[in-house]
Amino acid sequence: MIFSVTILGSNSAIPANGRHPTAQVVNIRNQLFLIDCGEGTQMQMTQFRIKRTKINQIFISHFHGDHLFGLPGLLTSYSLMGRKEPLEIFAPRGLQNMMDVILETSGSHLSYELTINELDADVHKKIFENEVVTVYSIPLQHRIPTCGYLFKEKRPLSNIRPEKIVELNIPFSEINAIKDGADFTTASGKVIPNELITFPPKRERSYAYCSDTSYFEKVIPQIKNANLLYHEATFMDDKAAIAKERGHATSKEAALIAQKAEVGQLLLGHFSSRYINLEPLLEEAKTVFPNSDIATEGTVFDVPFGK
Amino acid sequence: MIFSVTILGSNSAIPANGRHPTAQVVNIRNQLFLIDCGEGTQMQMTQFRIKRTKINQIFISHFHGDHLFGLPGLLTSYSLMGRKEPLEIFAPRGLQNMMDVILETSGSHLSYELTINELDADVHKKIFENEVVTVYSIPLQHRIPTCGYLFKEKRPLSNIRPEKIVELNIPFSEINAIKDGADFTTASGKVIPNELITFPPKRERSYAYCSDTSYFEKVIPQIKNANLLYHEATFMDDKAAIAKERGHATSKEAALIAQKAEVGQLLLGHFSSRYINLEPLLEEAKTVFPNSDIATEGTVFDVPFGK
Repeated sequence: MIFSVTILGSNSAIPANGRHPTAQVVNIRNQLFLIDCGEGTQMQMTQFRIKRTKINQIFISHFHGDHLFGLPGLLTSYSLMGRKEPLEIFAPRGLQNMMDVILETSGSHLSYELTINELDADVHKKIFENEVVTVYSIPLQHRIPTCGYLFKEKRPLSNIRPEKIVELNIPFSEINAIKDGADFTTASGKVIPNELITFPPKRERSYAYCSDTSYFEKVIPQIKNANLLYHEATFMDDKAAIAKERGHATSKEAALIAQKAEVGQLLLGHFSSRYINLEPLLEEAKTVFPNSDIATEGTVFDVPFGK
Repeated sequence: MIFSVTILGSNSAIPANGRHPTAQVVNIRNQLFLIDCGEGTQMQMTQFRIKRTKINQIFISHFHGDHLFGLPGLLTSYSLMGRKEPLEIFAPRGLQNMMDVILETSGSHLSYELTINELDADVHKKIFENEVVTVYSIPLQHRIPTCGYLFKEKRPLSNIRPEKIVELNIPFSEINAIKDGADFTTASGKVIPNELITFPPKRERSYAYCSDTSYFEKVIPQIKNANLLYHEATFMDDKAAIAKERGHATSKEAALIAQKAEVGQLLLGHFSSRYINLEPLLEEAKTVFPNSDIATEGTVFDVPFGK
C-alpha cells in the first residue's frame, strides 16, 4: 500500500546550490497529489519521472513565488498535452483572480475543467476527501495567509488469509466485500467473523506538511501523532531572531514541534540559500528529535507505520 | 568588442527533450539584455553563469507562457538578492496589469524601481537607445500581439594607431576623444585628420530576433542585412499547414526569410517537442540558406561582422 512523498524542491526564496523551490508529490495508492508548485516544478516532474497525469488535486500553501510561480506553466502545459480530466486546486483566497488574469493575458484556453477552491487559511478543517485520503487544512503563522495540509490515509483493505479461502470455500465474488470488512456466511449458514479470515488491517497513516511557518505551537494538536511531518527549517538556531522576523522556523524549532506532536519521523525542508551543506541543520534537529531527515530533492520518503 | 547571444532556452510550448522554453541574453560590450523569459530562466542563468545583475533591460516578445512564465520569479529573485538598480521591461500591452496582480497576490515588494514600457506590437519603431545599442520593435504575425526586436550596435570606438601616439606626442587626455572620432591638433597647430591616426572602425553589427511568427515577409525590410537573425522554426516543412494555422514557421520558411533579408547568419529556434533530433531541421534550412545553425542551449553565438 503505497503512501509516499517525493521531494521535487526544498529550497527557500531563490533557486540556489542546485536546489529548487518548493514542490512535492504525495502518492497514496498510485493517486498523486501535488503540494506547492515553485518555478520549475514541471521540469522536476520530468526529471524524477512523476506521472503528472495522475495528479488531479493540487494544494498550494501560500502565494510567495517559491511556492507558486510554477503553477501557470504546469496548468498550461497540461492543456498543451491535451488533458481532459478535471483538475482541482486548493489554496488560500486570491488564487482565482490571479489565475484568471494570467490565463487571459497569456491567451491560454485550458482543455480541461479547472476548479479553484479558495480556503480560509486560518481555519483547520476537512477540505477534501476521496476513497484513499482525507485532507485537512492546517493554519500556519507566516507573513501572508498560509496553510499547511494533513493527509490522512483511509483504512486500507485487509488481506484475506489464503488458507481460509480454501478451507471455507470462499467464492471469488465475496473477496472484495471481505477485504472491505464484511463477515462471511458459509453455505451452511454459519457466520464467520471478518477478523478470523483476514490479517489485521494495517493502521491508517498520516502525513503533515507545515511550510512556511514560524514556530507555532497551535499546529501541535492538529498534527498529533502524524507518521511523517515535513516542517520548514529555513535557518539554524543561531538565526532564530531572523527566522521569527521573517515568519520562518529554525531546524531546532521544527524538531521541537515534531517532538511535542509525537510524530513518527521529521523531514526538514525550505532551506535558506545561505546553507550549501545541510548536515548541520540535520544534526541540530537530531539533538531534539532523533528520527529526522533532510528532504533531499528526488528522494521518495515512505510514510512509516506507527509503533 | 563583444556582441553575442547566449541561448538559455529554445524549445516551444512545453519543456521537453532536455530543452527549456525561450530565453536568451544579448551581450553588447558587457551590457546584458534579456529577450523573453520562459519558466526556469533564472535557473538557466545560474547554469550558464550569466551575470544577471548586468541586465537592466528585458524585452518580452509576447505573453504565451513559454516566453513569459519565468518573469515573476526573476523579478522577485532580484528583489530577494537586494537589487537596487532600476529595471526596464519592454513588452506588448497588458504586462503592467498582470505583473501588478501577481506581485500584489504574492505579497512581493520589489527592492528596485521597475518600469514596464508597453508597446504597440504592430508598430516598427525605435523603442530603446543607450550608448551601445539602439533597439527597434519588429511586428510579427502570431496568434496574439507579438513583436520581435532588432538590436543595432552603436559605432564602436576606433583604436588609435600606437605609433602615431609616439610620433605626434598625443597626450593621454586626448585619447578618448580621438577614439570617438575627433581629429588631433598638434602643438604647432597642425590638424591631423582622425582617419590618419586610427584604424578604420569596425562596422556596426545588428541582431534580429523573430519569434514567435508565421512566415511573414513584412519583416524583411526591417531586418535587411542583419548580421545575425534568430528566427523561429517550430516545425519542418511537411508540417507547413499546421505551422501556419498555429502562427508558427517552418525551418525552410525561416531560411527563406534569412535569404530574402540577406542576413549574415541564421539561428533556428523554438523547436516543437516532437523533434528530439534537430539535425533534420538544420539540413532543411541549409538547402535554402547555407549559413544556418541550431540555437543550442548554453551556446554563445558571436554576431558576425558583415563582408
